[in-house]
Amino acid sequence: MESARPVSLTGIKPTGDPHLGNLIGAIRPALQLADSYDAMYFIADYHALTVLRDAEQLRHYTRSVAATWIAAGLDTDRITMYRQSDVPETFELHWVLSTVAAKGLMNRAHAYKAARDKNAEAGKPDLDAGVNMGLYNYPVLMAADILLMDSDVVPVGKDQSQHVEYAADIAGTFNHLFGENKLKVPRLVLPEDDAAKTLPGVDGRKMSKSYGNTIPLFAPENQLKKLVRRIATDSTPVEEPKDPDSSSAFLIYEQFASPEQLADTRKRLEAGGMGWGDLKNELFEVINTQIGPLRARYDELMAPGSDLDALLEAGAVRARARAKVVLDRVRDAVGISQ
Amino acid sequence: MESARPVSLTGIKPTGDPHLGNLIGAIRPALQLADSYDAMYFIADYHALTVLRDAEQLRHYTRSVAATWIAAGLDTDRITMYRQSDVPETFELHWVLSTVAAKGLMNRAHAYKAARDKNAEAGKPDLDAGVNMGLYNYPVLMAADILLMDSDVVPVGKDQSQHVEYAADIAGTFNHLFGENKLKVPRLVLPEDDAAKTLPGVDGRKMSKSYGNTIPLFAPENQLKKLVRRIATDSTPVEEPKDPDSSSAFLIYEQFASPEQLADTRKRLEAGGMGWGDLKNELFEVINTQIGPLRARYDELMAPGSDLDALLEAGAVRARARAKVVLDRVRDAVGISQ
Repeated sequence: MESARPVSLTGIKPTGDPHLGNLIGAIRPALQLADSYDAMYFIADYHALTVLRDAEQLRHYTRSVAATWIAAGLDTDRITMYRQSDVPETFELHWVLSTVAAKGLMNRAHAYKAARDKNAEAGKPDLDAGVNMGLYNYPVLMAADILLMDSDVVPVGKDQSQHVEYAADIAGTFNHLFGENKLKVPRLVLPEDDAAKTLPGVDGRKMSKSYGNTIPLFAPENQLKKLVRRIATDSTPVEEPKDPDSSSAFLIYEQFASPEQLADTRKRLEAGGMGWGDLKNELFEVINTQIGPLRARYDELMAPGSDLDALLEAGAVRARARAKVVLDRVRDAVGISQ
Repeated sequence: MESARPVSLTGIKPTGDPHLGNLIGAIRPALQLADSYDAMYFIADYHALTVLRDAEQLRHYTRSVAATWIAAGLDTDRITMYRQSDVPETFELHWVLSTVAAKGLMNRAHAYKAARDKNAEAGKPDLDAGVNMGLYNYPVLMAADILLMDSDVVPVGKDQSQHVEYAADIAGTFNHLFGENKLKVPRLVLPEDDAAKTLPGVDGRKMSKSYGNTIPLFAPENQLKKLVRRIATDSTPVEEPKDPDSSSAFLIYEQFASPEQLADTRKRLEAGGMGWGDLKNELFEVINTQIGPLRARYDELMAPGSDLDALLEAGAVRARARAKVVLDRVRDAVGISQ
């Protein structure tokens, strides 16, 4: 039974176009979760507002995230995907949680502390310089996202675990004040194999927008080919044996090649006679073969008049139905008229 | 034309039963405003949550505030009165404003600073001890209340003027980032005669819930009589001349007596022969005569099944229609899909 499975919630911030690292590190593992959970995904467009001040960009990235996940295999019949802004109950719950969340908790939040440290390093006398209330309130809104869906688990990387701890803390305070089991206390689920999910970028460091070393997921073929060619390699001559595991190109190749391709290529590299250029040609082929159909579906969804909006609306309807149950419970508990 | 008049917005926090001081200091002056403004009043039930943790009390006070204002003469056909919680657009706008409001602004907010000072005085090492995020976010929610209605003016006492300044500041920042005239910048309107609107309590200090010296607005007759008798007076004997203006009882009397009654009683007090007890009897009579019909209407509205809920719902419909226009403008400006 669908509803008997535990609910998992994942938020996706629409602040950039997706790259290969997102597919391997976030999208694929998240989609696997849907086998064991009643999985919900939301596009955190209102979270993105704390950093994004360009309406057109925000609209584009929001659609782009949705199209990417659907193209990558998110089945909107089985999985609820919705825009945060389509569930306004989020913001009402955010206020309620504000009234019970200790300010001291926010003072210790990672993102806020990082902003203060940056000001301190820059020698600014006001450590809150440039900090907006959205950044500071962020953990409370995350708690609202999570608690509004009666989420059982929140699968996030270690760097995000504090948000789940805060949500659990705030839910506990609320229940203490207004009655047990009013809000479900969520559990953290760390990905089983954290290391495997980091993909190197073209410069060998972790693929990340902030390093400018990404390969866009839906780059046109010629751009994809160019970027793959740019992946850093050592200068071992073609004929000499090579260590595949020290090569960024091979680490990416591992994520896209079949077991047979992988074994064969490894053998050829270790034997010598296969150059890095040859590896890159094969890498381009396996990526392009896998991404090709996804890119086509993505382009289809991103075209004006596609069924993307209808899919998101259907997701919003399901998400709001769930949100209403929780918010009604909360309103009743605190004494707000229904 | 109704819509051509400037919009004024007034918030009322439902954290206690109304007393005579509220009628004279807040309700009457606010109702007079409705002659020159398109007046809107909201019951800030979700604001009250920062201090009120009892669902039944919050429900009671919320209804009580509405019933009081209607009984006191608020004409729901001409004036829009609504519960804050009936306009969920408020909380969505609150989030948007968070993302543009500087945290430094909130550090300087009066209520927050008062809480820190209290902790400092108590020798607490953590100045944020006991401070919840609702208290800290309060000015941003106030800004959302104000800006959501395209308010032209906000008539408040001097102690509340910072909230209007903050709302204007935040609106200015938003317009700077997302386009001119997206949010209307509100003006502060201070009451014309601040001093006249403070009523003394039974102990002679300003009538205030926090002093425990109030006379409840809708106290039953016998309780009203008892409380009026308890008003502090000096020990001037009956036969001696008295200074009416030094007497709390007379200051209250001034607000309820007709000009003729006032002139007559003043003369008799100044001449001697009229005791404070006599003044209190007259005071009880004028209050009871004026409050009597209001109390009857209040009791009627507070009875289960009264038309109070329907009146509030009608107000909410009008308020939401206005809110939707503003929120749509804001969503469009920042890039949230409609």
